Amino acid sequence: MMESSTVTTGATRTLARYAAAVRFEDLPSPVVNEARRAIVNWAGCAIGASGYPTVENAWRAMRPFAGAPQAALLGRQERTDILHAALVNGISSHVLDFDDTHPDIFLHPSGPVASALLALAEHRHASGREFLAAFVAGVEVECRVARAVLPAHYEVGWHVTGTAGVFGAAAACSRLLGLNEQRTVFALGLAATQSSGLREMFGSMAKSLHPGRAAQNGLASALLAEADFTSADTAIEGKRGFAHVLSTTVDIGQCTTGLGERYELLRNTYKPYACGLVIHPAIDACVRFRDKMGVTAADVDRIDLAVHPMVMELTAKAAPRTGLEGKFSVFHAAAAAIIDGDGGEVQFSDARVNDPAVVALRGRIRAVADAGIAVDAVRAVATLRDGTRHELSIEHCVGSVRQPMTDGHLHAKFRAQCEPVLGTERVAAALELLNKIDKLDDIGTCALACAAA
Amino acid sequence: MMESSTVTTGATRTLARYAAAVRFEDLPSPVVNEARRAIVNWAGCAIGASGYPTVENAWRAMRPFAGAPQAALLGRQERTDILHAALVNGISSHVLDFDDTHPDIFLHPSGPVASALLALAEHRHASGREFLAAFVAGVEVECRVARAVLPAHYEVGWHVTGTAGVFGAAAACSRLLGLNEQRTVFALGLAATQSSGLREMFGSMAKSLHPGRAAQNGLASALLAEADFTSADTAIEGKRGFAHVLSTTVDIGQCTTGLGERYELLRNTYKPYACGLVIHPAIDACVRFRDKMGVTAADVDRIDLAVHPMVMELTAKAAPRTGLEGKFSVFHAAAAAIIDGDGGEVQFSDARVNDPAVVALRGRIRAVADAGIAVDAVRAVATLRDGTRHELSIEHCVGSVRQPMTDGHLHAKFRAQCEPVLGTERVAAALELLNKIDKLDDIGTCALACAAA
Repeated sequence: MMESSTVTTGATRTLARYAAAVRFEDLPSPVVNEARRAIVNWAGCAIGASGYPTVENAWRAMRPFAGAPQAALLGRQERTDILHAALVNGISSHVLDFDDTHPDIFLHPSGPVASALLALAEHRHASGREFLAAFVAGVEVECRVARAVLPAHYEVGWHVTGTAGVFGAAAACSRLLGLNEQRTVFALGLAATQSSGLREMFGSMAKSLHPGRAAQNGLASALLAEADFTSADTAIEGKRGFAHVLSTTVDIGQCTTGLGERYELLRNTYKPYACGLVIHPAIDACVRFRDKMGVTAADVDRIDLAVHPMVMELTAKAAPRTGLEGKFSVFHAAAAAIIDGDGGEVQFSDARVNDPAVVALRGRIRAVADAGIAVDAVRAVATLRDGTRHELSIEHCVGSVRQPMTDGHLHAKFRAQCEPVLGTERVAAALELLNKIDKLDDIGTCALACAAA
Repeated sequence: MMESSTVTTGATRTLARYAAAVRFEDLPSPVVNEARRAIVNWAGCAIGASGYPTVENAWRAMRPFAGAPQAALLGRQERTDILHAALVNGISSHVLDFDDTHPDIFLHPSGPVASALLALAEHRHASGREFLAAFVAGVEVECRVARAVLPAHYEVGWHVTGTAGVFGAAAACSRLLGLNEQRTVFALGLAATQSSGLREMFGSMAKSLHPGRAAQNGLASALLAEADFTSADTAIEGKRGFAHVLSTTVDIGQCTTGLGERYELLRNTYKPYACGLVIHPAIDACVRFRDKMGVTAADVDRIDLAVHPMVMELTAKAAPRTGLEGKFSVFHAAAAAIIDGDGGEVQFSDARVNDPAVVALRGRIRAVADAGIAVDAVRAVATLRDGTRHELSIEHCVGSVRQPMTDGHLHAKFRAQCEPVLGTERVAAALELLNKIDKLDDIGTCALACAAA
């Protein structure tokens, strides 16, 4: 067992001590299982987006300055130095906004941590177990750092996946490098002083830069600390440190309470649909109308949705014109779900958003904010042209903490994302390796399987 | 002439428009001259520190992952890719805390800008004039961004050389790459979302990481924007943008007022002594006692200094034990100045701080805070053992805006810093090239001259 934090040790040192001591053998099996699921989901998102313009542009810009081919770029043929691999894979993992979410802290935990770690672990020929232990250390550290500064930190405009993610990447890489406590303290300090990422970037490619740079800078922090590059001992809790400088609400105890006992990773969630979480219950309801009650677009006179107020705040776009705008339209999402039975990347493509059948149906979807509806719930009524009335409630949408995606669903998502990029056969092989990651002597086989041939 | 900013255009776009349009031919000659002086001072600091542990450790950590030998590391034999050259040269330039200072905004302007720019300009075979125009664009942008968020930004704990410096590097590199206005907007946005650097790091190697990362990330921002990687249009002034997220006092007009007319670069200053600016007047006074009045350590019964209150706040360490601690002791600095007639790196070495003659004399130095003394002034009385009393006042210490270091003094500083690293002959050649930088067809000759053979 890890030692609990003590009153006399600062948060930075307590987190460093924890991260430096995590061992695979000590991890409860649900935690190992969730780590495996998180990594499957992360890899699928990164492979799926690996040919998107955001990734292409970033790699085209950086490639002339990159180093030796040390690590895989997921979904791609090229290899590059581990720092650029961390950057590019971190960007890829977030482009589709289909990555994992810790719902309490608005954080996408795996992108910064796994992107840094896979590159480093491949280069060092680490085992799957070393990889998993380091991954857990990273996720636990970043989630706790985020908790210490929320809610003001996010509200003022920081993108916490970037700002806290860099701590996770640094902690994970420090663990994999076997750094001692003091060097891990310095790595966390170097992460603190590179922490960045503004919400003003939302809606642009720069949003995906955040987990990429967090991965790259966190990895660099661990490498610098390994080479005796020093930083502060109190980078998180100090007067001029991360928490006080980047937030007006600070609860530093959140960094350390229950460390090694209560696992943040067990509250991680995965998206079945390629859009913001708030629309997911509405999509769930419409998929159920279609699949369980046989409702078709032609039948529908109107669909009435009672939704959490945030749905109307964030996703009330009545006439979206692009796939990206479609992600901010509960009307489009519901219409596409009735017609296609899904809410994947295809449903949020430019073509689908402008498809006349979808456009016609979305005009017959109504949504009303209801403060009595939870954020992962919806109440839906489908009134058909023949007068039939179907009514249903979703209590906890698929992918929520209470209704997690099954392994089968996660695997189907992985295949759907990756097969267009890697082909059926390669995807099956990659998924098999990812599912037995704790048995691999060299994580490099897994990294290679996730790259293009 | 540049166009002045208009009311209808946001700060980010106005700065981008300015940076994209700066031409060497339009720069007033005092601005060109100051740019040249700033670059000489920057190069000297970077060469002087190029073998220090901070630089060695950073380069040892990064080297295995670096790319092709595209650009010089100042003072060193190795060459590396331009992103790592920007990082390492930016670190080197700040290690000695001997770099330039804009006294109104606590910013060291040249480190982030010149370190990014020299690497890029060498790689692109830019001319000296292109280099200078881009350098001026960068310094003007970073200083204005800093003004917009001070004082709260610095007071809460941001190291403005990192946080604003990244904008300067991005603007300068955008100009050198010839990016249009929109791409320059995106480059500034990418800079904004990578802006970082905490004062908690002061006293550790990580402080010097700030201008290094600012240089590297600013360069990367311009390269990404060149490859059509997008960001926000309102990264500085937007609701979730740089200014409002990183400061509680925002005066956004500071970004644009007088742009292209009033030059921040003309308020830049250079340090004659290798320590914080506040002790400089006291050193000046003691050098004058020694050189003009023939005062020796043996003569001194006591020296009484009336100093600005900040001197006692920051540098009242009575018994420093290391060179670094000596920089925070006005008593040590004054004693060493009486004995050596200088305040260079030698006077702030561990050896000199523990030299019995210096230790003995520092015990006979008194300093008293006096709210009537300006920050660049001192009143000093030397009482000698024979009863003689010498009194003098420094109104504006050497290196202040009102009493700038002469070119001769700057060149002497350059030689003193660089000769131990590069040797006399090479230093003379480098200085000659730096002094005629506006005549060079390819800045690469200058970069090569500043590297080791």
